Amino acid sequence: FARPTSTDTSNDEDSSRSMRDFLDEMRAENIREHLRYFTRLPHLAGTKQNLRLAEEIKEEWLEYGLDSVEMVPYDVLLSYPNTTQPNYISIVDHLGNQVFNTSLAEPVPEGYENISDIVPPYNAFSAQGQPVGDLVYVNYGRTEDFSQLEREMKINVTGKIVIVRYGKIFRGNKVKNAAFHGASGVVMFSDPADYCATGVQPYPDGWNLPGGGAQRGNVLNLNGAGDPLTPGYPAKEYTFRYRLEEGVGLPKIPVHPIGYHDAIHLLKNMGGPIPPNNWKGALNVSYRIGPGFTDTFQTQKVRMNIQTNNQVTRIHNVIGRVRGAVEPDRYVILGGHRDAWVFGGIDPVSGAAVVHEIVRSTGRLLRRGWRPRRTIVFASWDAEEFGLLGSTEWAEENAKVLQDRAVVYINADSAIEGMYTLRVDCTPSLHTLVYKVTKQMTGPIWSLRKSNQASGGFSPFRISKLGSGSDFEAYFIRLGIAAGRARYTKDKKTERYSSYPVYHSVYETFEVVDRFYDPSFQRLRAVAQVRGGLIFQLADSQLLPLDASQYADSLTKYAHSIAQLGQKHQDALITYGVSFDSLFSAVENFTTAASSFHERLKTLDRTDPLQVRMANDQLMYLERAFVDPLGLPGRPFYRHVIFAPSIHNKYAGESFPGIYDALFDIEHAANPRRAWEEVRRQISIATFTVHAAAMTLTPPA
Amino acid sequence: FARPTSTDTSNDEDSSRSMRDFLDEMRAENIREHLRYFTRLPHLAGTKQNLRLAEEIKEEWLEYGLDSVEMVPYDVLLSYPNTTQPNYISIVDHLGNQVFNTSLAEPVPEGYENISDIVPPYNAFSAQGQPVGDLVYVNYGRTEDFSQLEREMKINVTGKIVIVRYGKIFRGNKVKNAAFHGASGVVMFSDPADYCATGVQPYPDGWNLPGGGAQRGNVLNLNGAGDPLTPGYPAKEYTFRYRLEEGVGLPKIPVHPIGYHDAIHLLKNMGGPIPPNNWKGALNVSYRIGPGFTDTFQTQKVRMNIQTNNQVTRIHNVIGRVRGAVEPDRYVILGGHRDAWVFGGIDPVSGAAVVHEIVRSTGRLLRRGWRPRRTIVFASWDAEEFGLLGSTEWAEENAKVLQDRAVVYINADSAIEGMYTLRVDCTPSLHTLVYKVTKQMTGPIWSLRKSNQASGGFSPFRISKLGSGSDFEAYFIRLGIAAGRARYTKDKKTERYSSYPVYHSVYETFEVVDRFYDPSFQRLRAVAQVRGGLIFQLADSQLLPLDASQYADSLTKYAHSIAQLGQKHQDALITYGVSFDSLFSAVENFTTAASSFHERLKTLDRTDPLQVRMANDQLMYLERAFVDPLGLPGRPFYRHVIFAPSIHNKYAGESFPGIYDALFDIEHAANPRRAWEEVRRQISIATFTVHAAAMTLTPPA
Repeated sequence: FARPTSTDTSNDEDSSRSMRDFLDEMRAENIREHLRYFTRLPHLAGTKQNLRLAEEIKEEWLEYGLDSVEMVPYDVLLSYPNTTQPNYISIVDHLGNQVFNTSLAEPVPEGYENISDIVPPYNAFSAQGQPVGDLVYVNYGRTEDFSQLEREMKINVTGKIVIVRYGKIFRGNKVKNAAFHGASGVVMFSDPADYCATGVQPYPDGWNLPGGGAQRGNVLNLNGAGDPLTPGYPAKEYTFRYRLEEGVGLPKIPVHPIGYHDAIHLLKNMGGPIPPNNWKGALNVSYRIGPGFTDTFQTQKVRMNIQTNNQVTRIHNVIGRVRGAVEPDRYVILGGHRDAWVFGGIDPVSGAAVVHEIVRSTGRLLRRGWRPRRTIVFASWDAEEFGLLGSTEWAEENAKVLQDRAVVYINADSAIEGMYTLRVDCTPSLHTLVYKVTKQMTGPIWSLRKSNQASGGFSPFRISKLGSGSDFEAYFIRLGIAAGRARYTKDKKTERYSSYPVYHSVYETFEVVDRFYDPSFQRLRAVAQVRGGLIFQLADSQLLPLDASQYADSLTKYAHSIAQLGQKHQDALITYGVSFDSLFSAVENFTTAASSFHERLKTLDRTDPLQVRMANDQLMYLERAFVDPLGLPGRPFYRHVIFAPSIHNKYAGESFPGIYDALFDIEHAANPRRAWEEVRRQISIATFTVHAAAMTLTPPA
Repeated sequence: FARPTSTDTSNDEDSSRSMRDFLDEMRAENIREHLRYFTRLPHLAGTKQNLRLAEEIKEEWLEYGLDSVEMVPYDVLLSYPNTTQPNYISIVDHLGNQVFNTSLAEPVPEGYENISDIVPPYNAFSAQGQPVGDLVYVNYGRTEDFSQLEREMKINVTGKIVIVRYGKIFRGNKVKNAAFHGASGVVMFSDPADYCATGVQPYPDGWNLPGGGAQRGNVLNLNGAGDPLTPGYPAKEYTFRYRLEEGVGLPKIPVHPIGYHDAIHLLKNMGGPIPPNNWKGALNVSYRIGPGFTDTFQTQKVRMNIQTNNQVTRIHNVIGRVRGAVEPDRYVILGGHRDAWVFGGIDPVSGAAVVHEIVRSTGRLLRRGWRPRRTIVFASWDAEEFGLLGSTEWAEENAKVLQDRAVVYINADSAIEGMYTLRVDCTPSLHTLVYKVTKQMTGPIWSLRKSNQASGGFSPFRISKLGSGSDFEAYFIRLGIAAGRARYTKDKKTERYSSYPVYHSVYETFEVVDRFYDPSFQRLRAVAQVRGGLIFQLADSQLLPLDASQYADSLTKYAHSIAQLGQKHQDALITYGVSFDSLFSAVENFTTAASSFHERLKTLDRTDPLQVRMANDQLMYLERAFVDPLGLPGRPFYRHVIFAPSIHNKYAGESFPGIYDALFDIEHAANPRRAWEEVRRQISIATFTVHAAAMTLTPPA
């Protein structure tokens, strides 16, 4: 057993001075150096370079002074283009001649001409195949887009190749929708409307996506399963693997991404109806819907040529630890991925560089004799780009221990996606700590954002709920560990493009950050201080800085907003006896329990180590209480009843996702009675869950 | 927050003196009084009498001195015979005349003639209906019996009424098998071979089942779901209920139980082949298999007349608490059911009377100033007879809190089923404590069993693994809380009848215990001391008396025995690449982790409350680690990977049930490749689970 210090009384002054030192130690120029170093070569998951990078990180973390650092391998299903038969899309004439082919690679940015192993744009886990057919344009490929196409425009995509623009929802959902409606293939393109900011030049003269750039990305529908062949269990040597055709979330049709220069060629001659205005992008084409081409081009078809291979491949997480002095069995986790599609200038290295600097600063503190109350775990995940695989497999392998002992998971993906302000997405119980930590910072958020503080609200930065699409998923949505993430972001009022323009392209270089996003590296330093500050406080505070009353406030807000969504169907609510009353009453019950809990905390005898531990356990297990072991309908690995992505878009987190999706289905339900029954069932589950969570906050006996 | 005592150092001497007082306080004559009082009237679940009994228990527990006692209601699906249209089975001639009808009730035992509300023998949750058809006799109705019937005897039961004898497996499995094979109804009878001991008179002159007696019992296949209409969630006012036709585990065909006097009439004229010897019971009939009757009786058919109703009904648990002095947030639970089919002389009141005496003794200790280190919870469950409903709904409602805080669940159903020796079924980590507690007892086990101690082994009583069929199920098999049960039992070498003869009949009276099973009430006192002693030690020891190394020993034994079962198919193991090596290596890993853990425990600083707490947490959460959140195949509420009933018999607990059932299926598999794949998958899951459990025992950081 680890030997904790014998006294359990915290010295708040010491801890606060150490926090100051910890934050001050983080340097902009170091983050720049880490970013430079980690982006010098491509480091795709499953490649030698990414393993080498893992080994380097391991060595440096050990040098910095962590107690232990280990490599943790798994053998998971990855997907790569065939190196001898490249993927591309053709327009073929009636004789089968290729009259146009999309480009096989992006033009390589200056300075990187001699780099090999740049994987061309592709959609990982695409099915192989050469489907030929007419194109149909379906806007963003959302459920509502396909619905509009079929119901209003009366266009059927069965056997057609669907072309959709990137943006608004996760690309895997677009593919799922297309396959569901019978399409034989999917082409995804980046439209300048979604991937170029006005007044900004394409890279390298600015940070917009050039016409030759394209967005890589996986098209799985894993719903949190991790490795598609080993759902629920870590992909170890002894693990049973399903056959490929039984794998979770693998698309059955070919999918391929292209840039807007290529997209013009596919779109410009399309026939069929003119689309509604909100289907039109910013290219100089009519965005006709098809099917197929117009006039003299009518006999031309589109053929996809996709040779991408799935293969079980070894990946490596790097796990570093600092043993807690008082409660070594309580874990505070900071994790983010290391693998990148190419250089990963933004995604993930802007984040990984920040983690590296946090680890360095932690090491400095350790050398000066400091040791956190709780254990800190640092993780460099592999294969996030292939479906959050490294983080999910580790969560699966350690599920029991994490469920018993994990206090919080802070995610560290891309640290910057815009130049406007700080953005924190987190569980409500972290709200109070986020405000506290950002207030203690040495000014970078405030000073950088001075011109935008007009509104004068309490929070000069964005704080919102967690969605999905990064490595916190297994920790938060499956295991119910309190979680949060922080990054610098754009102004969503004025910057309407999705993610950031060069996202997942070869143009995500060191330079795009160094020249455009954060030349002073003050923004990344601010993110380091927020991520680090959260970790520090959660690891070192005697009483966990988690706020149940903030959870109560959020639940109240969410209950009102989901009830409002229900109110759109007032007549049906009456017809089918659907009421949100039980949910409101559960939320009230929770609110009372939370406020009594915090009231009692005030009189807690802080010199009694068991009293402190018991209160902390209640705080730690609060998030766990929102997990339903049965999972959301059809999604056994999405188990958080309050926060999960909608079935229709993995990226966006919905509150009360079970109720949300049941209400969403009402619109298209063949049997409304059954559909409303499902709404009632979901309200009942939410009601139960909120009551159960309230119970965890009441006095234990 | 509860205010624990400020010092955490245990005083082992005090605790041991209190234990002595606690055990000595339990009196045979009190147990007799409780038994007498609780069996004076029928107290079927959902009836007024059973509610009144709950209220009485609540009042007495409060008087005895528990800190709090509450009634906890649920509205669950129960099932009762129609009071105006009784259930019975007829033989009808070709004109449809009833030439024989089974009896509508059991002859009431002397002294109980004026008692109303004795529910006649029935199978709860039987479907309603009047199927008519030929009888087919299928022995015990086991999977292997039906298989033998179809494969060897070439008899198809489609559209037939199946008659099976009670015994060997859970009756619900018999019904499931019959329905699966197409039967239109099931008649169950108690054969003297299974329900009469040799040399013993029928009640009231002895403890054998009289010919007019019949076994009541539910015929659900819940697989741990609790209330059939609210699987996974507590049956509260806000809870969504499935329609009856969607309910979990409800049989679709009528089922009815009869005694052996009636059975003779149904069996005596049966035609068809003579059965194998092991299909023959002890009645003076040929046990011909059918279908149908012989000779002049050929035109006669059997008609079932079943009018039993399912109805949502309020039930009540009684929950009493003693707040822990040091760790109020750690729960030691003693629970057993209160509801009975009629008087419940053995089932459950012999157990409930014991609990009552334990509560009384606890109250005495409390009044003398003692208070346990941990919280003790006493539970009087309702509706166990209808599918473990009261205990399961409470487990569902409190799942989160129990998962976080429950140390152990000790079950208290029938305290006696024979006169031979003590029988303890428990999780392996309790073995050591069971030996310790029984050694401390004031002799009743040993003295009573003196004549049987010939073998001279370490354990003069039976200790085995937990099966199912009582209220520990949700706690142990679903939630992974360490569990055990203790009762007095028969000599299974010589007494081959199933359960005990008068089981679930009207003859389970106070007198059957007072006159035959335990006239001195020393056996019940011994059971009280074992159950109470376990609770006491688990609630009051500073360090939890749980032994991970015993778990390791059991896992080793189970791994060998399941591998041996696999070795029956040596060729197939090679053909399909099936190996148990990974499982053995996981068990070895666990064994090492367990022994290192206990080694480290020896040097634990017992004056450091947090060190003690951390070690106890590891011990507490060990059992939890064996739970797979995904459940066993097709059984989401059976989640314990080491212990669960086989799909083929709810009563018997199997070790590595996933592997066991997969191997069982090999025999009948249409696609052996797929069947062996499932074996491999189950071995992989078991391997992972044992590794994960080992991880919980390693140093936390």
